[in-house]
Formats: sequence, C-alpha cells, structure tokens
Amino acid sequence: MILPMIVAIIYRENTWMSFAVVIICLLLISLLLVRNIKENSFMRQKDGFVCVGIAWILLALFGALPFYISGQIPSYTDAFFETVSGFTTTGSSILNDIEALDKGMLFWRSFTNWIGGMGVLVFLLAILPQSDIKSSRMMHAMRAESPGPTVGKLVPKLKHTARIMYGMYIALTTLEIILLLIGKMPLFDAVVTTFANAGTGGFSVMNASIAAYDSVYIEIVISIFMIIFGINFGILYMMITGNIIAALKSEELRWYLGIIFASIAVITINILNVYDNIGTAIRNALFAVATLASSTGFVTADFNEWPPLSQIILVFIMFIGSCAGSTGGGLKISRLIILVKSGLREIKYTFQPNAVYSIRFEGKPLENDTIRNITAYFIIYIMMFSGILLAFTAAEECDIVTAFTAVTTTYNNMGPGLNEVGPVENFSHLTDLSKLILCFSMIAGRLELFPILMLFSASSRKKF
Amino acid sequence: MILPMIVAIIYRENTWMSFAVVIICLLLISLLLVRNIKENSFMRQKDGFVCVGIAWILLALFGALPFYISGQIPSYTDAFFETVSGFTTTGSSILNDIEALDKGMLFWRSFTNWIGGMGVLVFLLAILPQSDIKSSRMMHAMRAESPGPTVGKLVPKLKHTARIMYGMYIALTTLEIILLLIGKMPLFDAVVTTFANAGTGGFSVMNASIAAYDSVYIEIVISIFMIIFGINFGILYMMITGNIIAALKSEELRWYLGIIFASIAVITINILNVYDNIGTAIRNALFAVATLASSTGFVTADFNEWPPLSQIILVFIMFIGSCAGSTGGGLKISRLIILVKSGLREIKYTFQPNAVYSIRFEGKPLENDTIRNITAYFIIYIMMFSGILLAFTAAEECDIVTAFTAVTTTYNNMGPGLNEVGPVENFSHLTDLSKLILCFSMIAGRLELFPILMLFSASSRKKF
Repeated sequence: MILPMIVAIIYRENTWMSFAVVIICLLLISLLLVRNIKENSFMRQKDGFVCVGIAWILLALFGALPFYISGQIPSYTDAFFETVSGFTTTGSSILNDIEALDKGMLFWRSFTNWIGGMGVLVFLLAILPQSDIKSSRMMHAMRAESPGPTVGKLVPKLKHTARIMYGMYIALTTLEIILLLIGKMPLFDAVVTTFANAGTGGFSVMNASIAAYDSVYIEIVISIFMIIFGINFGILYMMITGNIIAALKSEELRWYLGIIFASIAVITINILNVYDNIGTAIRNALFAVATLASSTGFVTADFNEWPPLSQIILVFIMFIGSCAGSTGGGLKISRLIILVKSGLREIKYTFQPNAVYSIRFEGKPLENDTIRNITAYFIIYIMMFSGILLAFTAAEECDIVTAFTAVTTTYNNMGPGLNEVGPVENFSHLTDLSKLILCFSMIAGRLELFPILMLFSASSRKKF
Repeated sequence: MILPMIVAIIYRENTWMSFAVVIICLLLISLLLVRNIKENSFMRQKDGFVCVGIAWILLALFGALPFYISGQIPSYTDAFFETVSGFTTTGSSILNDIEALDKGMLFWRSFTNWIGGMGVLVFLLAILPQSDIKSSRMMHAMRAESPGPTVGKLVPKLKHTARIMYGMYIALTTLEIILLLIGKMPLFDAVVTTFANAGTGGFSVMNASIAAYDSVYIEIVISIFMIIFGINFGILYMMITGNIIAALKSEELRWYLGIIFASIAVITINILNVYDNIGTAIRNALFAVATLASSTGFVTADFNEWPPLSQIILVFIMFIGSCAGSTGGGLKISRLIILVKSGLREIKYTFQPNAVYSIRFEGKPLENDTIRNITAYFIIYIMMFSGILLAFTAAEECDIVTAFTAVTTTYNNMGPGLNEVGPVENFSHLTDLSKLILCFSMIAGRLELFPILMLFSASSRKKF
C-alpha cells in the first residue's frame, strides 16, 4: 500500500491517510505475529490449504480498508467485493462512477489486479527478504494455489523460477506502458490500465472502460497484450529466449490461438449486421474475444446487444479461459485438451474395448492418475459452479441469464456478464448477501483454478 | 399404425386412409428387403451403431408420413419434428392447436411416445416372431441403444428380460388408465395421456396439457405415475415382487426420491408468493418436479413466471433426469452418483495421494474402467451439448435462455423449455433448420442416453 499512498501524496489527495492508517495497523499486527511464531512447527497438506484460504480472505479484508476508511466506497461489503474482485483478478465492479474515485484509490484498485495476477503468495515468497521460511511450508502453500501432482519436484528452484517469472512480468508490464504512452494515453491511465491488463483483472479507470479512449491503436495494443498475458508463461519464456519454433509446437498455444481466431472469425460474421462496417465488427470481435479468452474483462462494445450465437460463444470462452500457467482464469486450455482427448478415447474404447489407448499431451503420454485427476477436477468444477449458482439465485431476485452469467464471470475470474451484470452495467445493485456469495465464487474460482504457473513453467515442461 | 388406423375408423375419420397408405407402402418395402437379406453377414460393433442410427431416422421419416399425407400437419419438417419428438419421448411439439387434430392422429402421436419409451428396437426384438435373428446382431443393436460394458453377458436372457419389462410396462399402463377413468377423464384422453406418461414423452391431447382437466386428483395420479416411470425398472420389479425392503436400499432410488422431495420443498417455498395458498404451490411444485425429473414434459403451471431459483433448479433436474433403466431421459441418477463420488474421491486423493480409495455403488466397488467410462461419457455429453447449442444459435435468432433451454429440453428428451419455448409456448415458430438441429439433438440424447434397461435390470444387478 506504500505505492498507492505515494501516488495519493503526489496528487495531493487527503485520502493518503487512509493508506497510512492501514499500513501502520498491518505493521503492528505483523510485529505481534512474528514474535509468536513457533519454529519448526509441522505443516501438512491440509494446513497448507487452510492457510492459503485464510490468507486470501485476510488480504481482501485488509485490502478493502483504505476504500472504506477514506469513505470512497461507503459500504464495507462493497469495498470487500471490489478488493476480492481485484486480488482474484476478476474485475467485476460495484462502482457506478469509477472516475469519481481519487487517483490513489484507483491505483490501489488496479494494483490488486497486478499482484493477484501472479498469485499473492507466490509474490510474497518471491520478494520477501526472509528466506528462512521452511520449504515444506512454501510447498504446501504453493500446492494450494496451484493444484497438480508435480509441485514438490520444483521446490529447490521455487524461488529462482518465481524470480524469472517476475522478471518477465515486469518487463512485459513496462513494455505495455510505453506502447500505451505512444498511443497518447495519459501516464497515470497507462500505468493503471497496464496493471489491470497484466493481471488479467480488467479494472479500468474510466466508466466506459477502454471504449473511453476511442482509439483503435490503444484497443489493438491492449487486445494483443491481453492475448499475451493469457499464454502460458513457460511458453512465453521460450519465445523470449528465442526458441520460437519450439514454442509454436506447443499444443496448448496452438489450441489457444486456434480458439481465439476461430471465435473472432465466427463472431465477426455474426455481428456484421450490428455494426456499420466490417472494420468495426472485426475490432469489436477481437477485443471481446481477447478480453474473455484471457479472462481480463476490459470492455469496448456492449455485447448484450449481439446475437445469441456470439453470446453463447463468449460464454463458452469464459468457461474455457486461458492457458495454464498464465495470469488468466477459467478451466484452462490444457485441461480442455485433456478432457476432449479422454472423451474421444472413450469413443475408441467403445469400438475396440480390448485395445490400449494412451493420451498424449505436448507430445508425451499422460499417466492415468493425471487424467483421472483432471476429469475429476472437471466434475468438481461443475458441482461447485452449480452449488454457487443455486445459492446466488436463492439470494437474488433477477432473471436467469443475469444469475448464470454473474456466477460464470466471477467463478472464472472474468469481469462482466450479460443482462443486468452486462458490460455497461455493474454489480452494485445486488444485495449484500449476493455480493458475498460472488466473493466466495471469485476466491473459489481463483484458488482451485490458480494458474499452474510452476507446473507448466519452462523447467517443469521437460519433466512433464 | 394399425391401432391408430382402427381408432380413426371408430371415430369415422377420413384420415384413416393415410395410415392405410403408409402401412401398405411399408409392407411392400419390407417384402423387398426380406428377399434380399444375406444370411450370416458379419456385423461389428460399429455396424450395430450405424444400423440403430439409421433405423431411428427411418422410423421417424415413415412415422411422419400419416401426419403429412392427411394434411393434418401441412409441413413435412414439422411432421418429422413431431414424430422424432414422439419416438425419442421428448414431447416438444410444433402444434399450435393440438385439439384440431383427428383422434386417430392424436392416438398415433402419443403411441409413438409409448413405443419410444421402451426403445423401439427392444420393442421389435421382444415381439417379432422370427427368432432366427443372430444373437450377435441383437447384441450390437442393444449396445447402441443402451451404452455400457455388460450387455454381452445378458444376451442369452435378452428376450426373456424384455418380456418381463413389457409385462410390467403394460400392467402399469393399464392401471393408470383405470385410475384416470375413475378421475372422470374421458376414455380416449385417459388412454392417450397414459401412453404419453408411460413413455415419459409428454404429448397431451389438450392445448393446455394436463391443466385443461383442472382436477387435483388427475394431477396427483399423473404426478405419481410420472415419478414411477422415472424409476429403474429393475427396482420396480423388486417392489412389485414384494421385495420392497431391498428396493428401498437402492442408492439410486434414494437419490432419485431425495432429489425430487428436496426440489419440491425448495420450489414450494420459493413460489409461495406467486400463488395464493400453499396448497396450490405444493401442487404445482410437485407436478413440475415430477414432469421434469422423469423427463415427461406434461404441463400444469407456467414456470416461466416462477422466480430464478426455481427455474435454475428445474434446469438442473432436466440435466440430471431419471433413473437408469427407466423410460426417462437425462444424464441419469446412477451416473450422477458415480460422478459425484469420483469428484469427492479426488478431494481425498489431494490430501492423501498414496492411499487407495474405491468407489462403491449399490454396495459394491466399481471397476476403474466403469468409472473412466462414466466420467468420459459426461465429457462427451457436455461436448455434444455445446456443439448442438452452437449450431442452434447459429440457425436461430432468439434470446439465449430460449436457445439454451430448447437444446437442454430436447437433448434430455424433456419437452418444454423456458421463454419462447416455455410451457405455454411451442416449437412451431422456429426455422426449419433449427427444427432439424433439434431433431438431431433429440435422437443424440435418446440414443446416447438410452435407459440402460438391461444393465440395471433385476438379473444384472447381482452381477454389478
């Protein structure tokens, strides 16, 4: 919170004090906690999960304080919703008038996107100076944020890998800020928009989101960076280090780009009637697909007014999400590939029950345990979604498209939904209970579906 | 078609001739075909699937002819849709004015529900006199209609089992007709409504469906029979033969009744505001849950006007459907149980990766192959649904609730959807292409999700 406080001071805003108050509180609390730490206390897998869950809720509870203390968001529930939405990189907002907020607050709001994008705990691990945290604890925390069987093997290099990731993350962020400045976006807007973009969060400083800038150049830059931040960071690393051919051989990247381009093509044709010319149609289709495929949530066009085919495609893209190992949300492309392949394998088994078929991913056969894990994950994913949807409709009086897409967009950490939570609407009119249910939905979606950063990173790729 | 022809003659309707024409055509064609049959021709699994697919399409193509020839349904596409909807026991209709049809036609329409309920091919196998059909051919056809690994073992008793099933089916049908007659329903209506009920099809002879009779007694009788026809016939057999305690121990039956009663309770509370008194609310909730859980599709209340929670619960029930081995559609309760259990097992594995957990169903551990088959089936189910939904929205200009529920209701062989295809609407306003896509959806849903009659029947239960 030091950074947003400095921003507030630069812009001579009185609200810098609310950051200061929270910073002092947090320092005091941590001093108390550090004193009471028991060394070598045993930590099991279950404890790791519980810790991460509690840590995320605490982060949001404290993160919401500056908004509330400063009075910029008068309801604490709303402030909590906004902060959860920020840290989980969802980008759903309860603000009716974003531009009325102080710059320091806007900076903090988008900064939560940026931190959340790479995983708050991984962030802490990577930058905290005290490296005496037990590796077992780190591993358990990691595993909770990034589900999968091979985290353990990475532990020795955990810190190293995390630093490479952060180097790339910061470099790409800087590059995007520069490109946006070239597009004549104001410095503050460029920095804050880039934070929200890099974390695939989608908090904009404008009420009309990216449409406010009315610049084709800015839209295209942001579209491209949204697609980039939805790519597996391991593959990005290969590309940056010059290994482009190897990167292009990646199944996941091919599917990801394939789905994006196919969706853009179909939607463009589908929305031709809505817009005057093909250029506008392509531009809006590109932006909408990029924003949802990467789970960012920036908005240029009101896709509430698009035909149902486009809307259904967008809902599917919301569920599929981005690549594993990116900052994006959703089910993840790699899981989709393995699910589709296991479905197809079953059809083969029906005709040849005694044959043995193995499923290959990225050129290597997968173990049965991995496949079982992913299919069961999909079932849990659907079950959890159904449960949240039932709870939400019990709490909120609204039409079922609003209910369905509100849960879809928060569960997949996307941003806007359809109808009453559509691109030009927001979440402020919901009841407090509904907002809390959606907070749970965002955290559940984020932690279960945490970008499997380490699993699919450059170093683990060989082992996979 | 001989039965509906007789009905038409009794009611002195000229349209009996259209049945006569089709009957003569079919006789000629089959004579030609029988002559050209090659004995001992080899039939593989794949051929079995293809045969069943073609057989279903041919049945619907010929079944639609009487409607079209008589001019009672002027469009052949509409007649085809109505017949597919009948044979697949879906019950979605394109008729704006059902009561305008001749009685013979109405009889034939609901009779397709009744035949379709038990599987057209199983029906043919059970009553055809020529028992020289090769058992391998029967097995392959069976397997296509009822997916699963243990069909082969049942072949020696196939005919026997099918006959017991039909005995029960006819006995229950007769019982319902008598009970409806006691409720002062006209004889013709009682017979035809019972056909549609037994097949869990849902074709009514009244425009207002069951609401037209405005009788609590009739609604309750039909509700109970809808629930009964959604129960696994193996369990029903146990009940009828006096083994009620064993039947009540069945996991599938418990889940089925549990889901039904829980849904009725929640929906009743949820719709209290819509209706004047709690009695009407319970009555409408009972009927709606029974009609959708059994995938029948009769209508008494317009649940388009219910709150979103009730609508979402109804959509979930549409997907879950009835018990395996019943005449109903949907994903089936037994699959749901195994999916939920495999999801829960994965959570256990996360905490104890080295432990071994087996999944038990109906008291017996399941083989890994069976679990793999069911989870993969679920994936194919979702993939197929997504594909049909995309095709439908591409063909039809409508809101997404209409699109989503039109595909849901046909894919799960239900009947009514929401909005423009809701309980008081019908499918007549769709384009021809959309209707054909929904025909595919109905057949795909019916064949993939064929009641696994034999698999879960009384005799195979021991082996399972």
